[in-house]
Amino acid sequence: MAVGLKPLSNLHPVSGVSIGVAQAGIKYANRNDVTLFKLCEGATVASVFTQNRFCAAPVIVAKKHLSSMAPAYFLVNTGNANAGTGEAGKQASLACCAAVASLAHCRVEQVLPFSTGVIGESLEVDKITAVLQAAFDNLREDNWLVAASAIMTTDTLPKGYSTQIELGGEIVTITGISKGSGMIRPDMATMLAYVATDAQVEQDLLQSLLSKANSVSFNAITVDGDTSTNDACLLVATGKKAVSLDQHSDSALLETFYQALEETLKYLAQSIIRDGEGATKFISVKVENGKDVGECEKVAYAIAHSPLVKTAFFASDPNWGRILAAVGRAGIDDLAIDNLTIKLNDVLIVENGSRAKHYSERKGQAVMDQDEICICVDLGRGKATHTIWTTDFSYDYVKINAEYRT
Amino acid sequence: MAVGLKPLSNLHPVSGVSIGVAQAGIKYANRNDVTLFKLCEGATVASVFTQNRFCAAPVIVAKKHLSSMAPAYFLVNTGNANAGTGEAGKQASLACCAAVASLAHCRVEQVLPFSTGVIGESLEVDKITAVLQAAFDNLREDNWLVAASAIMTTDTLPKGYSTQIELGGEIVTITGISKGSGMIRPDMATMLAYVATDAQVEQDLLQSLLSKANSVSFNAITVDGDTSTNDACLLVATGKKAVSLDQHSDSALLETFYQALEETLKYLAQSIIRDGEGATKFISVKVENGKDVGECEKVAYAIAHSPLVKTAFFASDPNWGRILAAVGRAGIDDLAIDNLTIKLNDVLIVENGSRAKHYSERKGQAVMDQDEICICVDLGRGKATHTIWTTDFSYDYVKINAEYRT
Repeated sequence: MAVGLKPLSNLHPVSGVSIGVAQAGIKYANRNDVTLFKLCEGATVASVFTQNRFCAAPVIVAKKHLSSMAPAYFLVNTGNANAGTGEAGKQASLACCAAVASLAHCRVEQVLPFSTGVIGESLEVDKITAVLQAAFDNLREDNWLVAASAIMTTDTLPKGYSTQIELGGEIVTITGISKGSGMIRPDMATMLAYVATDAQVEQDLLQSLLSKANSVSFNAITVDGDTSTNDACLLVATGKKAVSLDQHSDSALLETFYQALEETLKYLAQSIIRDGEGATKFISVKVENGKDVGECEKVAYAIAHSPLVKTAFFASDPNWGRILAAVGRAGIDDLAIDNLTIKLNDVLIVENGSRAKHYSERKGQAVMDQDEICICVDLGRGKATHTIWTTDFSYDYVKINAEYRT
Repeated sequence: MAVGLKPLSNLHPVSGVSIGVAQAGIKYANRNDVTLFKLCEGATVASVFTQNRFCAAPVIVAKKHLSSMAPAYFLVNTGNANAGTGEAGKQASLACCAAVASLAHCRVEQVLPFSTGVIGESLEVDKITAVLQAAFDNLREDNWLVAASAIMTTDTLPKGYSTQIELGGEIVTITGISKGSGMIRPDMATMLAYVATDAQVEQDLLQSLLSKANSVSFNAITVDGDTSTNDACLLVATGKKAVSLDQHSDSALLETFYQALEETLKYLAQSIIRDGEGATKFISVKVENGKDVGECEKVAYAIAHSPLVKTAFFASDPNWGRILAAVGRAGIDDLAIDNLTIKLNDVLIVENGSRAKHYSERKGQAVMDQDEICICVDLGRGKATHTIWTTDFSYDYVKINAEYRT
């Protein structure tokens, strides 16, 4: 069902990051469901995590470990989110980290745990620890493609992106993978994304670049408005290339690196939407000329979360009244509707608060028949802009979520 | 598909209110789609309207007329919402009011227009004015049942409620009807409800009683989170009975009247949810022991709007992790999850932020197999409480909204 999501081919290895996978049979049989990342010494790591108050046990443990020392391993399991599991869940997460630390002869705080899957079930630690040696045994730098599949849950396709740029005379690589299809309305990040570069990037700068790129990528997508308990996005800089970035670096150099990072995160975030549960459309919602980004976001999410808008898109029905109603209830109290225009791609549908003079059903239908559509709302009251990406609501969305877990 | 909604039988007439209906063929053939209410002289009227910034032409006209003089007629059409229609829509609405005024020999400002149906299409004024005489000809005080059907759009059943109370030695009647099934997340009211009493109630008191009862009835329901452009709830007091209420009336008398009014509005509001588009469950979401009503509402609507929670209820799947995730993302930054409990009816599912010790799938499944379920969240941090009502998300919800209009 995925909309316009190309099969993954080449993901460039990142010198300093190796990846191993294994089959633990946590929920699914005969597939890789445990993924181990090994980072080289001296790598810097930036991260963003879910803001859900019920953040999962591995999120709590990973944040604690990150605050105490530089990480050397990420351990990811799919099939069980280890969320809503209380103190026992934290102990289970710690036990997995301890098993990695024991095999790697490192400190337990150097291991970050990540889990995704069903909420509320106990994590079977033994199943995971039993296959850790196998994951260590196949640690390879060219395993990104394998890992992209190993971290999937309800995803129908693996998601990854890789780019190379010239930076200070060096060829620098940025490679990342992500997973996610439902419970997608990231609030700081989404479950899960791992991105690495071989550039050397100073820790504080790495964090600020990740936060900035995250706000226009993972924090700008929604399938269903449901922020996960396990969201996490990790960015690693291994420093294997001679080019080194910090807050005082040349601004053109920083900008080149940032643009490549943003492009990577946007691609990974949009891939999650393209593979959104039951998706038949890939919808961009662009809100322009608002007073501030906050009100642009409000309008964009009111549209993107409206079940009536989403089902109309599933039906390829240019029922623009539903978009207009969503804008009207977005919570902007002093919105003057007379200045407002709405377009579907390049077709003007609403001007001065009502149907555009030259609009026709035929023109609207021609846009709706496409797979990729941009809803563009011009608020006509300022200079701020914000764009988010979302999907439609289909029979399959209901089917997937009514059947999942049972 | 309606959940537990009983067929309408007796709706007591309210002395001083007569109702006529007619077939204009606006969208549906061979059914009543125009409804005319005639109010006696001296009746007081209270009202609440949608807060959607794109409020429809009839809402704009009705509010203006209400501000200038006491209304004598309500004119309601179904099949076309006359929303998103700009200045032409306002003129169409005014033309309908003028036609009523001409036949009734009253001022145009004494007529309030109401429309419901498709957004964005021009209202065919001629179709409506052509049948007004027929509506006048069958004005009757016992036409409430007929009117309950005439105002329906995607509703599968008519909705009404009637009660009689003893008040100051008189038998006072309260009768009301409502319509609505989709685009239901009222913000001050819902489209449409008409309630009348034969008590005499002073204008300001009537408005304050309506606003209060509205906040725990029509403002406490949601099907899809989409606030309509046409919501309106009107309350009429004809004063035909000798009992008279104002701000200085005996508090026990006021309380008796208020309780009967609240009971009426709650029943009408809950009827809309029971008949929610594609509904297979009637779900109460009760949030207790919050710091204030605002945060209880936030949590309740986060649960009620979660597509993941709604599809799990459709599947009768006790997937409580989705409820927990919704509570966690409700926007209460300092929520301490250790104090939180969640029940499904009387089954404790979450305590101290994780699965309750004595919870079992079997117990959860027994609740989920029922048609009417209460999700009860105890925030454990204050004394405020709020309850709202909602539905599940089914295949039929998608089907109805993907097919409607086309």
